[in-house]
Amino acid sequence: MRIPILRLERILLVSIQVDLTDNDAMQFQSDLVERVAEIEALGVAIDITALDVVDSYMARVINDTANMVRLLGAEVVICGIQPFVALTLIEMGRGLLGADCAFNLSQALEMLKRRIAERGDTRFIGDEDV
Amino acid sequence: MRIPILRLERILLVSIQVDLTDNDAMQFQSDLVERVAEIEALGVAIDITALDVVDSYMARVINDTANMVRLLGAEVVICGIQPFVALTLIEMGRGLLGADCAFNLSQALEMLKRRIAERGDTRFIGDEDV
Repeated sequence: MRIPILRLERILLVSIQVDLTDNDAMQFQSDLVERVAEIEALGVAIDITALDVVDSYMARVINDTANMVRLLGAEVVICGIQPFVALTLIEMGRGLLGADCAFNLSQALEMLKRRIAERGDTRFIGDEDV
Repeated sequence: MRIPILRLERILLVSIQVDLTDNDAMQFQSDLVERVAEIEALGVAIDITALDVVDSYMARVINDTANMVRLLGAEVVICGIQPFVALTLIEMGRGLLGADCAFNLSQALEMLKRRIAERGDTRFIGDEDV
């Protein structure tokens, strides 16, 4: 099953709930960049609340995905990093360097909307539409 | 893989992307009602944009799920019904009687927020938090 990508106007929401295999990760990344390009997304929120463990492979996948999306010109926020995940990522010597983080999905959306507003991108039609 | 349930404050977002087997459907329904109860969700948006075909089994699953969530006391909106899906559902003599519908996820969120506001439920802290 593919990772669902939800759309809220020009923002995409993705929730990673399981460890991805190599194939899953490639499929996910190509689905996401295609979708970003298709709707000219202005921001992407990647929610990893459901992940209790993030190994170095998954950390790289998440980082790479964030960087891909940013190359296309969209903002990225990662949210829902569990305390234990934060602890192990830093102990492994890896942060999630590719993107900023938010506590939960609604804070991630706020952060994305603020960033998009700061860009002065008026194609995104403000709070009342999300 | 389980169907991801995303949380935006007291609203849950679900995107069904594939036809569900009996087991998937039961797992999905129990995951969803548990999650609704756990966070005392005020609303649930079920997005079926990705479904190009909805047979009578899937229609029943979606209806049943909506009714379960409503029994718990939360509002439900179904969104993203494709034109061809609407056509075949009505031709089969089935609507999605269990819930109201919205064009896309952001309209579903608006509808849920309006409904929740009409209930006078002040636990949900308004537009700026979603």
